[in-house]
Amino acid sequence: MVIQPILDLVSLCAQKGIKNAILSPGSRCAPITLAFARHPEIHCRTISDERTAAFIALGMAQQLEQPVVLVCTSGSAAYNYAPAVAEAYFQQIPLLVITADRPAEWIDQWDGQTIRQPQIYGKHVKRSFDFPDEFSHVDKVWHAQRIVNEAINLANQYPPGPVHLNIPLREPFYPEVGEQFEFKPVKNIEVLASETYISPILETQLRDKLKVYQNILIVPGQQRPDSELQATINILASDGKAVVVTDTISNLQSAHTISFHDHFIGNASVQQQLKPDLIISFGKSIISKSLKLFLRNNPAAHWHVQIAGYSPDTYQSLTTIINIDPKNFLRFLNQNLAKNQDYVNRWKTLNDLVKKNLLETLRAAEFGEYKAISKVLTVTPDHAKIHLANSMSVRYVNFLGLRNQEIICNRGTSGIDGSNSTAVGCSFTTKDPIVILTGDLAFFYDRNAFWHNYPMNNLRIVLLNNHAGGIFRLIDGPARQPELEEFFETNQSLSAKNLAAEFNMEYHLVEKEDELNIALNHFFGASPFPKILEIKTESPKNAEILKWVKSQVQNLL
Amino acid sequence: MVIQPILDLVSLCAQKGIKNAILSPGSRCAPITLAFARHPEIHCRTISDERTAAFIALGMAQQLEQPVVLVCTSGSAAYNYAPAVAEAYFQQIPLLVITADRPAEWIDQWDGQTIRQPQIYGKHVKRSFDFPDEFSHVDKVWHAQRIVNEAINLANQYPPGPVHLNIPLREPFYPEVGEQFEFKPVKNIEVLASETYISPILETQLRDKLKVYQNILIVPGQQRPDSELQATINILASDGKAVVVTDTISNLQSAHTISFHDHFIGNASVQQQLKPDLIISFGKSIISKSLKLFLRNNPAAHWHVQIAGYSPDTYQSLTTIINIDPKNFLRFLNQNLAKNQDYVNRWKTLNDLVKKNLLETLRAAEFGEYKAISKVLTVTPDHAKIHLANSMSVRYVNFLGLRNQEIICNRGTSGIDGSNSTAVGCSFTTKDPIVILTGDLAFFYDRNAFWHNYPMNNLRIVLLNNHAGGIFRLIDGPARQPELEEFFETNQSLSAKNLAAEFNMEYHLVEKEDELNIALNHFFGASPFPKILEIKTESPKNAEILKWVKSQVQNLL
Repeated sequence: MVIQPILDLVSLCAQKGIKNAILSPGSRCAPITLAFARHPEIHCRTISDERTAAFIALGMAQQLEQPVVLVCTSGSAAYNYAPAVAEAYFQQIPLLVITADRPAEWIDQWDGQTIRQPQIYGKHVKRSFDFPDEFSHVDKVWHAQRIVNEAINLANQYPPGPVHLNIPLREPFYPEVGEQFEFKPVKNIEVLASETYISPILETQLRDKLKVYQNILIVPGQQRPDSELQATINILASDGKAVVVTDTISNLQSAHTISFHDHFIGNASVQQQLKPDLIISFGKSIISKSLKLFLRNNPAAHWHVQIAGYSPDTYQSLTTIINIDPKNFLRFLNQNLAKNQDYVNRWKTLNDLVKKNLLETLRAAEFGEYKAISKVLTVTPDHAKIHLANSMSVRYVNFLGLRNQEIICNRGTSGIDGSNSTAVGCSFTTKDPIVILTGDLAFFYDRNAFWHNYPMNNLRIVLLNNHAGGIFRLIDGPARQPELEEFFETNQSLSAKNLAAEFNMEYHLVEKEDELNIALNHFFGASPFPKILEIKTESPKNAEILKWVKSQVQNLL
Repeated sequence: MVIQPILDLVSLCAQKGIKNAILSPGSRCAPITLAFARHPEIHCRTISDERTAAFIALGMAQQLEQPVVLVCTSGSAAYNYAPAVAEAYFQQIPLLVITADRPAEWIDQWDGQTIRQPQIYGKHVKRSFDFPDEFSHVDKVWHAQRIVNEAINLANQYPPGPVHLNIPLREPFYPEVGEQFEFKPVKNIEVLASETYISPILETQLRDKLKVYQNILIVPGQQRPDSELQATINILASDGKAVVVTDTISNLQSAHTISFHDHFIGNASVQQQLKPDLIISFGKSIISKSLKLFLRNNPAAHWHVQIAGYSPDTYQSLTTIINIDPKNFLRFLNQNLAKNQDYVNRWKTLNDLVKKNLLETLRAAEFGEYKAISKVLTVTPDHAKIHLANSMSVRYVNFLGLRNQEIICNRGTSGIDGSNSTAVGCSFTTKDPIVILTGDLAFFYDRNAFWHNYPMNNLRIVLLNNHAGGIFRLIDGPARQPELEEFFETNQSLSAKNLAAEFNMEYHLVEKEDELNIALNHFFGASPFPKILEIKTESPKNAEILKWVKSQVQNLL
């Protein structure tokens, strides 16, 4: 049987500009699957592991900045989406999560693949909609169309995020022989929105408020690269009007911003001179725990700028929420801030000192993951996109400062559960090289990322294999416990060799610096296959090296 | 810092007889991890992928019939437990699911690994408890102990199931140098329960009610083997008092029960003579869709027997819920039912007919997964436990009738997401052979089941690799669609060869009947390693064979 409201759902997705769907196989979802697969304007891919499927959709939506559709069958399939749904919620990535369901009368009747799906993602979707299960009254047809309009509009409206559409379906699921699908235009409720500018009244207010502050620290959180924002940031910083401290996931690092702060901001002897009167933030989270602690322990006023909605008090000092487009606010700042070259220079001096010495220190260091990452980053093409796994990969890259590539990391929930899949999703959206920089735990955890039939030959995986969750050896607490290796690091013996054979990937294993150098010669070259560069190091040695590099840098300060 | 209420939690687990915990690595959960790891009476294992960890715990708790503890860190880790939590809920398996969390003041502040954890499993846990986050008032200590008492008691009380304990924790997470853990006895609120017998009044009532029925059909749902129940069932059936129709997951099949019903119950020409007046059920779900449809389409009275609580109306004919221990109810039936040899014989004749001819038909059939499974089952030792994956594995085994081994299958939610892990958990509880009979989609989906450091040399994996979700070719609807191979079967190219190398498993690939026979000669023999027997077949050929076997059997009727 053809269920026209399901076809209308797909038509409306297309009318609203959705171009991609990730489907997972199932019987209950067949009417939805067929409708998406047969729509001429929506590109469908099928991924069997729903956990992977959802992170792949997230990786695509992140790049496309438009919702990607997910479709799965009823039952626990829906729950396998949950880790990515939570990540999308906190990272503000639009997803239209469609779960097929049995109709209400068959819930809890011990039929197969039946759980309690309405509201299943709890507080981790912007809203959960229940699709009608029959359409004999004309209002039901309107209801179905209204729901789809609301769901997609909501996914896109600020802050974007995942919405859930639970669709109960009765058999028969398949069209009869000869039945045709007809995709018709559907009433599309459009959303018109405008940029948020600063009104003249607010401008006066803000100018007055600004007057009392001298030392202004701009702290952008996680966001995608934005050349317009970058230009304003660069002027502000280079003109000496404010310090801009940029974690790697801010994607706003430049020669004018501070990117080596993680090395000095925790040092008590320099903190006094770096204290701001006013913190200005926009974007989402930051990586540097030292920076967070510095800001929490040194009270200042804190303005957070975002278009609308809830703002967290990340530094325990939030005083003002400014509901303006950050771009317009920064332009205003640029016009209204006086120079404070002295404050800017204090940060810059320390930043330059680390910048100048860090690479030399690393050159003198023994070979380990720190040096290896540094080396890899040096030769990574500028047009690559770098996906960093939690937990050490993103921290090392943040230590290493200024990057030209787009940096992507699942910092919404900071899980290790979907970093490969997110990168695979990203690789579906571009021909540019996609680099995964990952530890072994995150890598093997999400290995089903590669279990599908779609090309991903632009993928370059740099696997830092220390056969453990090395981060635990780098934290004082667990490192002191006799349970360190079994229950924290969780030693694991795998190398990627078999996995590479399994998924037809080029594989290189290196254990020494000169081997790495040779391997890197051709690693970023074109290839019909994805490539894995496995860098084998020892967890205790890595801990020693990190400690040594830290102490060398501290000696400079 | 040592948090005594966390130590008390672990002490109370031990006092209540919990002996096993599955931990996943993390920092936020460190105080809980250390407390479990250091308790002398609780055996801890660490599993990195939380989805796997939870299904392993489920596989253990299913066998042990006592709660197994799960511990994970904060953030999306908790959501990776969700598929197994839902399965445990509907399969009524006790789990104590402990998730570490940040304290309330740090939720939604863009700190790492922070989501909205309270109530995260929605309607798929018996209850979700919020542990106190500080203990300066003495009532808080009592509250913590009371919660743990309630949680474990509830997990065990009928019907058993998962309970969730969310534990907010503040730094420091680790004991200071020299700090010792002291496990002290904690107030243990015990639960005393009795068997539910039939009172004399109810006995009279039931006797009166029974009088109006002649053709009585007993339909046990999924349950673990029970020799006492089996003995009563056998007498009832062999005495000709009732027909007992036993799906493979009922674990109550015997020479006296009907186990080949799936072959004839859907045949319209025989249905008339098989109609019951009264259906009596106990246990959980059944597999056979034909049996379900037969019962739904032929109205009869339906009594469902279970100790307490909610009963579904699986056959749309539920008239009476009897809150009695099924064992006692069946004993009563045995004493009070008159013989109806005629009705019993009608079922038995058909059952024997299929039984006699099926193996011969299979012998004449071409080699494919049907024949292969039949062959494997013939040589599987009786003391093995057989884990069946959804979707075709469990159906084939149900077709093949009478089994002596315990049959296990995740029919709570009927997902393919954790069948390997459930079997691995089972293998941790016994030295008997654990057989996984699985298709390729379920197998590769849950491959992280094998990613840990614990021996599982009693595992014997029979992988039916048709490189697709073959079930979709066996259903008329999807088989007719041009999207069959890409979006339903989801062709996948992997064989288990690389996986076997990766996890140190013995590997045998067979494609022909004689190869299978040779491989089976030693397959169930002892080995220091798990073994994989990969049986490669063609999905279209399997569909043909199944159709042919069906038609041969239908010709008999």
